[in-house]
Amino acid sequence: MAATALFGPVVEDLGQVEEVIAETARVDYPVLAALLGHILQTRGKRLRPALVLLAAGFYDYRLERLKRLAAAIELLHTATLIHDDLVDDAATRRGLPTLHSLVDGRSTILVGDYLFARAAALCSQTESVRVMAVFGDTLMAICDGELRQMFGASNWRQSREDYYRRITSKTASLFRTATETGAILGGAPEPAIAALREYGLSLGMAFQIVDDVLDLVGDERKMGKPVGGDLRQRVITLPTLWLLENRPEDRTIRDIFEADGDAEEAVRQAVETIVASPAIDYSVGVARSFCQRAKEAIRGLPDVPHRRTLLDLADYVIDRSS
Amino acid sequence: MAATALFGPVVEDLGQVEEVIAETARVDYPVLAALLGHILQTRGKRLRPALVLLAAGFYDYRLERLKRLAAAIELLHTATLIHDDLVDDAATRRGLPTLHSLVDGRSTILVGDYLFARAAALCSQTESVRVMAVFGDTLMAICDGELRQMFGASNWRQSREDYYRRITSKTASLFRTATETGAILGGAPEPAIAALREYGLSLGMAFQIVDDVLDLVGDERKMGKPVGGDLRQRVITLPTLWLLENRPEDRTIRDIFEADGDAEEAVRQAVETIVASPAIDYSVGVARSFCQRAKEAIRGLPDVPHRRTLLDLADYVIDRSS
Repeated sequence: MAATALFGPVVEDLGQVEEVIAETARVDYPVLAALLGHILQTRGKRLRPALVLLAAGFYDYRLERLKRLAAAIELLHTATLIHDDLVDDAATRRGLPTLHSLVDGRSTILVGDYLFARAAALCSQTESVRVMAVFGDTLMAICDGELRQMFGASNWRQSREDYYRRITSKTASLFRTATETGAILGGAPEPAIAALREYGLSLGMAFQIVDDVLDLVGDERKMGKPVGGDLRQRVITLPTLWLLENRPEDRTIRDIFEADGDAEEAVRQAVETIVASPAIDYSVGVARSFCQRAKEAIRGLPDVPHRRTLLDLADYVIDRSS
Repeated sequence: MAATALFGPVVEDLGQVEEVIAETARVDYPVLAALLGHILQTRGKRLRPALVLLAAGFYDYRLERLKRLAAAIELLHTATLIHDDLVDDAATRRGLPTLHSLVDGRSTILVGDYLFARAAALCSQTESVRVMAVFGDTLMAICDGELRQMFGASNWRQSREDYYRRITSKTASLFRTATETGAILGGAPEPAIAALREYGLSLGMAFQIVDDVLDLVGDERKMGKPVGGDLRQRVITLPTLWLLENRPEDRTIRDIFEADGDAEEAVRQAVETIVASPAIDYSVGVARSFCQRAKEAIRGLPDVPHRRTLLDLADYVIDRSS
């Protein structure tokens, strides 16, 4: 789907956000500049910056401050991806080699830290104490989520509550922050801030559940990574939870967690079992209900084009294939 | 030297800062809590938080906000040390094992990120936009410095300007931030903020130069690490610069940089040569003049006990042996 169709009224302004993001790579050192260039070139959908601008479009839209906030949110996201890929030892991201597969782990850590720093500096340029407080808390929530995932990863006995908590801090917290801080800078009254915050949170939950589904049924070429990645890393997601809860006699998941070394055959079998079961449909259904909740949250907001785009985005999150 | 003698009027308040720091380790996950506990137990001198409180003591001293800022500065410092030790592959810090020598690199990255996040969150609790802007910029300066050090480390042809720029971002920028933000929260008028900022910057320069000298002549037991660490990591410091500038015919430094593998013998010889030369006295002299500049900067400030303590701290930085 083209960006224009997806992001409607903020497409042009996203170009200015892009410029702020690109400035990040303008540093003295050629090697660092090249690394930053590579990272920032590996462009995602820019969904999070778009959410910032869209959430700010209801009352008092001022691009100068907003573009810094939107860039800060995207750079924070990028920084967490870089450290995540290093932590997970992932070889590719969006079909391109990850940073640490190109350079050493040391540079990767520092480049990630640099992006954290640049994100914090850009965020402080919004001059909103409230925005910065939300930003700081979000950063903690994300790290907390990563650490939970790491320390919880070797156990297959996880509750649905664990899963929701994990994807909240891993993904939904930043979506929530994008819409909440966008609304704050956009001069929204408290009930509208709460509504947009709820929208972002629910959209983020749906987004991550769809991601977890695509990890099992996605097109490997479009995704730029092989299926079953979560199981290979012993990460329990919603479709797997369905299997564990509804087919307690099935041992494939346990086999993965109890495998001494290579669990590749067990992973292949687990993917097959899950895909053949109702787990996928069930999970998409849960994602759909989160999207429904996101839409409900903003029903009462002023009828500006931004609202229409946010409603459409909720449908896109469910229908996307990569 | 005992903390009471060093930190005078803020010793008791530093106890409250300690509590804020300790709260950082109160997290749900036992493994994470243990790691954080280990890190925060490896207590340094708490020089940076003391500088925050001391710089805030001239006009309007309010501990509630200040203790969060002081803890944020110390946690930022701790986070950079953790990532640094991982990047440098250091085995010990202050005589205790470094985090990544106890657990894997993945946990180390995430624990460092978590501390960055907690520092940013605490900083945002000061509710001062200006303090947060300074904080964000400092974080960038520190990362920039680390990256410079890394990408510049394989070259022995470095200028004095390179060195000063490096130690500014590596060390002096955080000292400067401690006194500047302390002064801002302490309600100091602009000239006093500038004076305390200058004090912190100069003190930080002196501190790092003394550190670089101690790396060559320090007591290994007190320092908790072997001498010559900088040379071993091919980092050029002021005493080494003296040798390169004044004994251009001496090849020991070049030998270290041009060694294929283990340069241990060359390092040993270089340490011996530098220690026997006037390089050490010269470097201590430069540090002393930075301390002089620090003292000059705050001469005109109100004559409160905090000023006396800051003046004494400048002497301590030169006379310390670890």
